[in-house]
Amino acid sequence: MALKVSIVGATAYTSFELIRLLLRHPQVKIVHLGGRREGNPRVCDIFPALRGLCDLQLTGLDPEEAPEKPDAAFFTLPHQVSQDYVPKYLKAGIRCIDFSADYRFDDLQTYRRHYGEHRDAANLPRAVYGIPELFRSRLRGAQLIGNPGCYPTSVALALSPLVRERLIDLGEVIVNSVSGVSGRGNKPEPGSMYCECNENMAAYKIGAHRHEPEMEHALELLGAGKPRILFVPHLAPMDRGILSTIYARLLKDMSAGQLHEVCADFYRGEPFVRALPASEQPRTKDVSFTNLCDFACTPVHGGRVVVTSAIDNMTRGAASQAVQNLNAALGLDERLGIA
Amino acid sequence: MALKVSIVGATAYTSFELIRLLLRHPQVKIVHLGGRREGNPRVCDIFPALRGLCDLQLTGLDPEEAPEKPDAAFFTLPHQVSQDYVPKYLKAGIRCIDFSADYRFDDLQTYRRHYGEHRDAANLPRAVYGIPELFRSRLRGAQLIGNPGCYPTSVALALSPLVRERLIDLGEVIVNSVSGVSGRGNKPEPGSMYCECNENMAAYKIGAHRHEPEMEHALELLGAGKPRILFVPHLAPMDRGILSTIYARLLKDMSAGQLHEVCADFYRGEPFVRALPASEQPRTKDVSFTNLCDFACTPVHGGRVVVTSAIDNMTRGAASQAVQNLNAALGLDERLGIA
Amino acid sequence: MALKVSIVGATAYTSFELIRLLLRHPQVKIVHLGGRREGNPRVCDIFPALRGLCDLQLTGLDPEEAPEKPDAAFFTLPHQVSQDYVPKYLKAGIRCIDFSADYRFDDLQTYRRHYGEHRDAANLPRAVYGIPELFRSRLRGAQLIGNPGCYPTSVALALSPLVRERLIDLGEVIVNSVSGVSGRGNKPEPGSMYCECNENMAAYKIGAHRHEPEMEHALELLGAGKPRILFVPHLAPMDRGILSTIYARLLKDMSAGQLHEVCADFYRGEPFVRALPASEQPRTKDVSFTNLCDFACTPVHGGRVVVTSAIDNMTRGAASQAVQNLNAALGLDERLGIA
Amino acid sequence: MALKVSIVGATAYTSFELIRLLLRHPQVKIVHLGGRREGNPRVCDIFPALRGLCDLQLTGLDPEEAPEKPDAAFFTLPHQVSQDYVPKYLKAGIRCIDFSADYRFDDLQTYRRHYGEHRDAANLPRAVYGIPELFRSRLRGAQLIGNPGCYPTSVALALSPLVRERLIDLGEVIVNSVSGVSGRGNKPEPGSMYCECNENMAAYKIGAHRHEPEMEHALELLGAGKPRILFVPHLAPMDRGILSTIYARLLKDMSAGQLHEVCADFYRGEPFVRALPASEQPRTKDVSFTNLCDFACTPVHGGRVVVTSAIDNMTRGAASQAVQNLNAALGLDERLGIA
Repeated sequence: MALKVSIVGATAYTSFELIRLLLRHPQVKIVHLGGRREGNPRVCDIFPALRGLCDLQLTGLDPEEAPEKPDAAFFTLPHQVSQDYVPKYLKAGIRCIDFSADYRFDDLQTYRRHYGEHRDAANLPRAVYGIPELFRSRLRGAQLIGNPGCYPTSVALALSPLVRERLIDLGEVIVNSVSGVSGRGNKPEPGSMYCECNENMAAYKIGAHRHEPEMEHALELLGAGKPRILFVPHLAPMDRGILSTIYARLLKDMSAGQLHEVCADFYRGEPFVRALPASEQPRTKDVSFTNLCDFACTPVHGGRVVVTSAIDNMTRGAASQAVQNLNAALGLDERLGIA
Repeated sequence: MALKVSIVGATAYTSFELIRLLLRHPQVKIVHLGGRREGNPRVCDIFPALRGLCDLQLTGLDPEEAPEKPDAAFFTLPHQVSQDYVPKYLKAGIRCIDFSADYRFDDLQTYRRHYGEHRDAANLPRAVYGIPELFRSRLRGAQLIGNPGCYPTSVALALSPLVRERLIDLGEVIVNSVSGVSGRGNKPEPGSMYCECNENMAAYKIGAHRHEPEMEHALELLGAGKPRILFVPHLAPMDRGILSTIYARLLKDMSAGQLHEVCADFYRGEPFVRALPASEQPRTKDVSFTNLCDFACTPVHGGRVVVTSAIDNMTRGAASQAVQNLNAALGLDERLGIA
Repeated sequence: MALKVSIVGATAYTSFELIRLLLRHPQVKIVHLGGRREGNPRVCDIFPALRGLCDLQLTGLDPEEAPEKPDAAFFTLPHQVSQDYVPKYLKAGIRCIDFSADYRFDDLQTYRRHYGEHRDAANLPRAVYGIPELFRSRLRGAQLIGNPGCYPTSVALALSPLVRERLIDLGEVIVNSVSGVSGRGNKPEPGSMYCECNENMAAYKIGAHRHEPEMEHALELLGAGKPRILFVPHLAPMDRGILSTIYARLLKDMSAGQLHEVCADFYRGEPFVRALPASEQPRTKDVSFTNLCDFACTPVHGGRVVVTSAIDNMTRGAASQAVQNLNAALGLDERLGIA
Repeated sequence: MALKVSIVGATAYTSFELIRLLLRHPQVKIVHLGGRREGNPRVCDIFPALRGLCDLQLTGLDPEEAPEKPDAAFFTLPHQVSQDYVPKYLKAGIRCIDFSADYRFDDLQTYRRHYGEHRDAANLPRAVYGIPELFRSRLRGAQLIGNPGCYPTSVALALSPLVRERLIDLGEVIVNSVSGVSGRGNKPEPGSMYCECNENMAAYKIGAHRHEPEMEHALELLGAGKPRILFVPHLAPMDRGILSTIYARLLKDMSAGQLHEVCADFYRGEPFVRALPASEQPRTKDVSFTNLCDFACTPVHGGRVVVTSAIDNMTRGAASQAVQNLNAALGLDERLGIA
């Protein structure tokens, strides 16, 4: 009766988050963890926090290696790898939610420019970009969902009210984001070491991060024109959380109260997005381990607005948004398993 | 033979940093720690790290309460309080270096607008804004030095080459800064608590921080026009460090290499400022506990440049720059005590 | 139909944790938040993370100030204060779970020696010490539950198998514990500040912490004699988590495997306690934000055993154990709301 | 005129610390950095904090590869590797200070049991165990110094007064230590990653760490018998610092004041060891980035004493103690370069 799900690529931090969430989802049962590790360990041997909670063994990545045939599959594989597995699952009639960038762009050219060749271009038109509050109608029934990047999620949720209402100049938007270290994944690299990250802050990939075109793409989907974004990400000494500070020019004079009203109206009834007044700045800690996005708009001198947005990069920026997307695709209460 | 110095307001975090530095300064002797604490404790009772290193007792704030008459005095008092004590020391012929904003502005109007009344306006014209690399000639022999704010120091050092060479549009500069928690001082307040700061990031005082006009003032002193800055500070979960990410428009097309050359030329021979190529981003940890400023210029699409700048807010942003200023005023090797 | 609950003392960190848990408990409805704050703010004005999730207003601490009469009440008041409110709730027929030490001791003398006078001694005999895995039968139907201290919980859960099986010498047990900073509560004090806790470790109250007699009391309840414990707590730079490292002498030679078997048997079927082999050391992060206790026994030279135990001080050490206790008292599935 | 020194193994965290210190040593000049990295990078390419401060290029590890012949050499190579290089330097008349365990034991059996074969046993009798406050007379003129381990340093300094005065039972001493993550070195491994260490505490190598026999050996050198130590190390979420909490039985009744007096007397005149009263517990932060050791003795019930000791594992536990050892060997003021 429960929905059977696969997690393909089960050794990433995001898979761990996803497993924790799905274990509490009342209508889901994990039946398959696909991952390549010598000796096919149990997932709790890789993530000891799962001891006693999930002792499934890793098997292969292909659908036929699933101990039971799943109804839906989450892919936490790297870019360029997902596209080799997703088509196999789709062909078997399995609903797919992909965490990589492989199915985020309907525009093949943009994908190619930033990620390289695509070996499954045929399925791109079916893929839905998965931010439920913004694209809910397209998600209903979707067989293939491109789960958004963490930074673009924080930006698209916060800017959408202003973009839809055509309140900001899309020609020049600056996004200054800060992320916790879990965003780097769990591969041991110098830049992920405790002593390199603790008591440290630095920018990276200035104006050259692949989430910059994804942000532009996500906002373009709102149908109010394509924005031109300058994106500068930074790493901060914390496990999780993204704070985006966004600078844009207002197209008309708006008070803080008016901006708040526009945003509160836009998200009225949404359980996971909280439009805050400018006097209450979003804090990443307030959304930590949740699917929430907190954001606020502060008008400043020079006819500009500063939009600040906080999400948890591991949950709203990846795992819990994927569950929300699954719920939305199935027409379930979107809060199942994540609230 | 050694220079005798007072620290007036000896219970602030910045005083602690200053004491640590001055204890190693070969030509300085601390003779007076002025502070109001019941029972006149020793400074090492307040800062246990100083046990065995400095056991001076706190006495009153006035110059006549100094056990020995000082030659120079550092003031780590709050804004609006310094101006009550500095004139007394000046009158006694004692060289003054003030950490508050009270002597940073020669423009009384700007001070009044952001800080309130000034009860020692008469001494403002004598005050020198103390960034040695930029204003060295004025510092030589100065009797009164306004030690700069931490955020403005990180910005003025990094932007000066581009401003002096008139390479950026001063009409619209955005400064996105992140600071460690020590910047909040050592008063126990909710916002300074471990559990409120750890695993958390948030913006504050968006477009409304008093360092915004100070940044404009500091850059105006370079004589290339007055910039219009939008400043958004944030707090990050770390003890110390400021990273400023600055967005400006280039007035002419410049490659990363050309920008680096301009900056490297500007600071050639300076021991404390390191102009980095865009490929090596400044990290706050690399300048932690030092008087260094690391910065880099990265040209990006849209004819813009992103300037990133890292300092330690407690040393270059306060205590070690004050020592450098003292050295500069006395004509000593500026590195004494801080390199 | 849902159980109506009060939280009396709703402004503590533990109350915040409790509210987060109870909001997800399928059979509980919060009807009353008692707390003294000027202007009776909403709880989400105090804990902004609760915006949109819980907007109840604080009212007074007495039962008649509850907007609806509760069936059960949690008390997150300080020691010596709870005893003034608990009797009023009991008299009104409301089940009480107290987070303070006021109802943890059936031995009035011990309480008096460590905490002072007790103004509700009459109710002490009814109080049950609430560690469900150890005292489940007494909890069933209990009207008054003393919710254990965080450190004693970590120790009692880990030592109980060895104590019950009379495998260790109770005459000399050393408990070396490390706690995250949230254990200090949310009152702004010098010792709770970010810059005093970050990058710092220190012991406090050596052999003089009030959890030392509570540990002895908790283990005595197992009926195998009263242990003599030396307890040394420390503070570590993290939000949450307790790691206790316990040193005891084995009464007979036991291998690591045998010790593990005893412990695994003891907790067989328990969803919240994980007996680990000595080769897998408990990590506080693996139990963070959960009701879990992970522990392991490592026999070492000299006929001794080192028992290591990890819990989350805010959940298992306070809020989630309280919910488990409520579930146990009501005969519900103990996992409701916390798994 | 300055003493020329080599650092052999220049890519470790401890080498970085050592370089920072030696750059400020008034009588030392670094002439050789030996390290194996492809392309012989400059040390500031490996440690960007050294940009502009030290731009020496790495050359080979052998003495003949030093650009100038050094007078002294520091070895920051792993155990079992140092012993292949130290003899070559000794033969060339170069004074050697080794950071590995290779020259810490005069007892070849103990070394073999814990580390393996020794290919330079001939030089062991010349080696002096380098804790200047305890073994100063042997260090004077020493040609070969075994620089102690970090944990043993924290323990030997704190226990020596009690051991020398025969105040504690050496038969059963428990050492519970906590270290910052830098103690793991700078090799990218899962256990050194930010997201594995942050918000986490765990024990490791319980009763099986190789510093256990080293502690016993260090204390045995005091001539009051060989202690039997049980050592349990832990990792804490901080960059640097070791806090050791030591449990021992007092051989006679001593008050806190008497214990403090014994310790203060023992270290009278020593600039780097601070014996604190029991009321002031050592904090790792107070000794961070210094050569200091803070410690205190707290007598507790059961005739026992708890000795707490704080050092910085990277400086007193490695680099600055090595410089102090060099100074001691040369008969210089031991504070040169490190105070």
